[in-house]
Amino acid sequence: MPDSPATPPTSPMPLPMVGVGVDVHAFATEADLELAPRPLRLAGLDWPGQGGLLGHSDADVVAHAACNALFSAAGLGDLGSNFGTDQPEWKGAAGIVLLAEAARRVREAGLHIGNVAVQLIGQRPKLGPRRAEAEAVLSEAAGAPVRVSAATTDGLGFTGRGEGLTAIATAIVFPTAN
Amino acid sequence: MPDSPATPPTSPMPLPMVGVGVDVHAFATEADLELAPRPLRLAGLDWPGQGGLLGHSDADVVAHAACNALFSAAGLGDLGSNFGTDQPEWKGAAGIVLLAEAARRVREAGLHIGNVAVQLIGQRPKLGPRRAEAEAVLSEAAGAPVRVSAATTDGLGFTGRGEGLTAIATAIVFPTAN
Amino acid sequence: MPDSPATPPTSPMPLPMVGVGVDVHAFATEADLELAPRPLRLAGLDWPGQGGLLGHSDADVVAHAACNALFSAAGLGDLGSNFGTDQPEWKGAAGIVLLAEAARRVREAGLHIGNVAVQLIGQRPKLGPRRAEAEAVLSEAAGAPVRVSAATTDGLGFTGRGEGLTAIATAIVFPTAN
Ligand SMILES: [Zn+2]
Ligand SMILES: [Zn+2]
Ligand SMILES: [Zn+2]
Repeated sequence: MPDSPATPPTSPMPLPMVGVGVDVHAFATEADLELAPRPLRLAGLDWPGQGGLLGHSDADVVAHAACNALFSAAGLGDLGSNFGTDQPEWKGAAGIVLLAEAARRVREAGLHIGNVAVQLIGQRPKLGPRRAEAEAVLSEAAGAPVRVSAATTDGLGFTGRGEGLTAIATAIVFPTAN
Repeated sequence: MPDSPATPPTSPMPLPMVGVGVDVHAFATEADLELAPRPLRLAGLDWPGQGGLLGHSDADVVAHAACNALFSAAGLGDLGSNFGTDQPEWKGAAGIVLLAEAARRVREAGLHIGNVAVQLIGQRPKLGPRRAEAEAVLSEAAGAPVRVSAATTDGLGFTGRGEGLTAIATAIVFPTAN
Repeated sequence: MPDSPATPPTSPMPLPMVGVGVDVHAFATEADLELAPRPLRLAGLDWPGQGGLLGHSDADVVAHAACNALFSAAGLGDLGSNFGTDQPEWKGAAGIVLLAEAARRVREAGLHIGNVAVQLIGQRPKLGPRRAEAEAVLSEAAGAPVRVSAATTDGLGFTGRGEGLTAIATAIVFPTAN
């Protein structure tokens, strides 16, 4: 059994809380794409000429991981509990729309969003040339700074084989005075 | 070689520190379960009717990732260095017991725990209906808010094939005045 | 569309920001090592007798994940955008040198580094006995506390098969007054 928690530091400001979020989607295969075109939607942007990700809504792993990190920091559950089958009005909504609504719910819960940071893991697309554009779109949706960065896995695992993308995110939120 | 660090902001409160933790365990296979029943213990809860995870102690990946994040934020090592073979009294202890002891060691080091956030990644069990229960049990053990959320990997990787579960966690801690 | 952001809490200190970083490298295979020795360089240390990681520079996943987390928190992009092909002077630089330069760029951007925390995921080497040494070297490079911890994946995935190492990191930074 734990001790009673140590007295929090005397603090003139409410203490921040952190969260973590992950999301993964598979790329549409050649066979999938022959049956139906599936454009890539990622980090709030369209990526013409790139085969897309499969999955619920637009499968924007970056936006979805950002939502999960925000809900996690705020103690508000996750994408599934917020936008799942019992809330059909969000079915098929774009990732960026879900991110805006996630941020709204976090603020509605009395929290200020410090920032959100997302790392995209996978082979394609090349994020670098469009990072600023992606960060602007995501930050506007969240009403707070959202950073996006990218890494590859050196050919290892499903991301290294180009089978899908993983995004991992963190967020920090602050209780507001009022 | 780096510059000397920038002067920290004049701050009336000690600066918070963050940590990250991961844990992974494999599910018992059908063959394993025929040899010996292995109940699922996850996020501090029993999950009747679900085949369990293999590994040290109860293999509670959520509790273990939370411990790792706390030790990481506090600069106190990890699960292995804290509860490893040279500390046999913790051998086989439930994840929730380890989490309580991890939190105790973090506070003993003069740190206040802001919160811990854990995202569970895998196919089963469905966490949503029991999130509140899991968060209550984990938070009581840690003496601080612990949030739990869940994501799947769209059928990709070992978590997508249902071979095991991954949990990834973050935590924030604050030096206490005394 | 989001509401306008909630008023930030009245705070005598600038609000901290958090970041996340991941890096993955494959181990050299037996065949690779017969062609050319490839020593392991990890967490700023040499690991004699251990086959090394492949990849750009010394493939120090711990140092690289730490860089990514710092850039992420600061909103400065990632390893690729900072030390990529358009900045050839950093080609082949040791991870620890990149970490020192990453920290310098973060401070140059007006940010104080609170801490960086990295979790190494994989089968080898055994980090525990050399954690203090690794943390000292990495912290000196970053000019801020860097914690390193380790976890295995219970034989699952590419890390569990010993094909490579993953490192995942988080960081917290604070705007400086001046
Ligand atoms: Zn998703
Ligand atoms: Zn474990
Ligand atoms: Zn690297």
